[in-house]
Amino acid sequence: MIRQQSETDRQFILENMFVAVMDNIFLLVLVTLLSVVQNVFFALKVEKECTGQHSKPHSAAFERLSCANRNCMDTYPTFLAVLWCAGICLSQAPAAFAGIIYLVVRQKYFVGYLGQTCQSTPGFLFGKRILFFLSLMCVVGIINHLMLSYGGSDYKESIQTITKAASTLLLLP
Amino acid sequence: MIRQQSETDRQFILENMFVAVMDNIFLLVLVTLLSVVQNVFFALKVEKECTGQHSKPHSAAFERLSCANRNCMDTYPTFLAVLWCAGICLSQAPAAFAGIIYLVVRQKYFVGYLGQTCQSTPGFLFGKRILFFLSLMCVVGIINHLMLSYGGSDYKESIQTITKAASTLLLLP
Amino acid sequence: MIRQQSETDRQFILENMFVAVMDNIFLLVLVTLLSVVQNVFFALKVEKECTGQHSKPHSAAFERLSCANRNCMDTYPTFLAVLWCAGICLSQAPAAFAGIIYLVVRQKYFVGYLGQTCQSTPGFLFGKRILFFLSLMCVVGIINHLMLSYGGSDYKESIQTITKAASTLLLLP
Repeated sequence: MIRQQSETDRQFILENMFVAVMDNIFLLVLVTLLSVVQNVFFALKVEKECTGQHSKPHSAAFERLSCANRNCMDTYPTFLAVLWCAGICLSQAPAAFAGIIYLVVRQKYFVGYLGQTCQSTPGFLFGKRILFFLSLMCVVGIINHLMLSYGGSDYKESIQTITKAASTLLLLP
Repeated sequence: MIRQQSETDRQFILENMFVAVMDNIFLLVLVTLLSVVQNVFFALKVEKECTGQHSKPHSAAFERLSCANRNCMDTYPTFLAVLWCAGICLSQAPAAFAGIIYLVVRQKYFVGYLGQTCQSTPGFLFGKRILFFLSLMCVVGIINHLMLSYGGSDYKESIQTITKAASTLLLLP
Repeated sequence: MIRQQSETDRQFILENMFVAVMDNIFLLVLVTLLSVVQNVFFALKVEKECTGQHSKPHSAAFERLSCANRNCMDTYPTFLAVLWCAGICLSQAPAAFAGIIYLVVRQKYFVGYLGQTCQSTPGFLFGKRILFFLSLMCVVGIINHLMLSYGGSDYKESIQTITKAASTLLLLP
């Protein structure tokens, strides 16, 4: 029985647990930080446009910037939720890769929105594809967990390999 | 001492940890995924209404849809935060149950908003009740943890039973 | 080998893991709960203003309240994301402290917004400083983790001490 060495073990488990948790999430944290930097960039753009145009507060350019920013912010919690769920349930590397592509798409969307409305539509559709991919990762991860709990078979490694290969498909235009 | 078998143990702890974590969160992940699907449904509804009415862009129907969507999105991070905190601090089953009821209420709210403004008020109040229930779960979980750390007594199991029973009260209209 | 005692060990690890996880996040959960209470307070303020002015729905006071609420809600997911990342990657106490200061600043911002637009600018800048501090904590935590993984040196304790000292600098106006 190892239960007698409780205090030392708890310390040992805690240390290992912390390292193991960090191993599994640090890429997700990096992507989250990048998205935060992008959010601040968007907010500064809107703020600059807002304060630079005090004479005509509701200009068309400000309206478009504000609208693009609001669209990005509306989908931001959804993105964060599926990114972290996918990364924890299945594998962090493909999730973080998809997250970075999402950020690139969002940047394109924000810049494209400043031109005309029709330019923003492809970006919006592209974002949906990444969210769908991340959601699929969550579903596969949960199904694998249930199979492991009730059936005893563990396909996690092969699924992770397939996921890594599939994530490169997101690069297709 | 088990510290000598460090590499094997770390692997062993990591594997068990992953299974244990998934055991404790997979219902929350499912509810999160459902909420994401609902978010996408709302966004598609707004997008469809927007593109279908290019001739009269600021119609009353579009305004109401957009407003309902914005209200839902504004409370979404709050909902996710208390859902996950309640699920991790205390017990995932009642938290996920309350989350599903919240999603049903939100659906009712969104549909009801399309009719008239007065219809949406009950849904809004109902949502507050669920958020209050989830916040209460967090508080109880933290108090139990502090009692366990400093007092040594652990009422977790009895609290979880009470919580499960109490969560059915959310079904009351 | 401890692998033979698998079932008992898994239970033992799971219990210890739960306590260890709660030890590392309960302050973050408390700050999250406080922020949720504040969100509900903001929403009730807006709702009250909205229903109390049915005769003149788009008054200047309602517009300002609604705008302040929207600005707060737009940055809320960003705040939650960096708060939790910083708390998990490095240390929860300074992160929770910075979170509470952020909530105070947000309260000031919301109240100040009701007066005039120019009053809100300092609050907005102050919020950015806290977000920057939390992001820096994430980056330092990740760098420390990578150094621990590849270099073998662990400066976590000294970094945590420095972080705790640095977090008091946020109190400067």
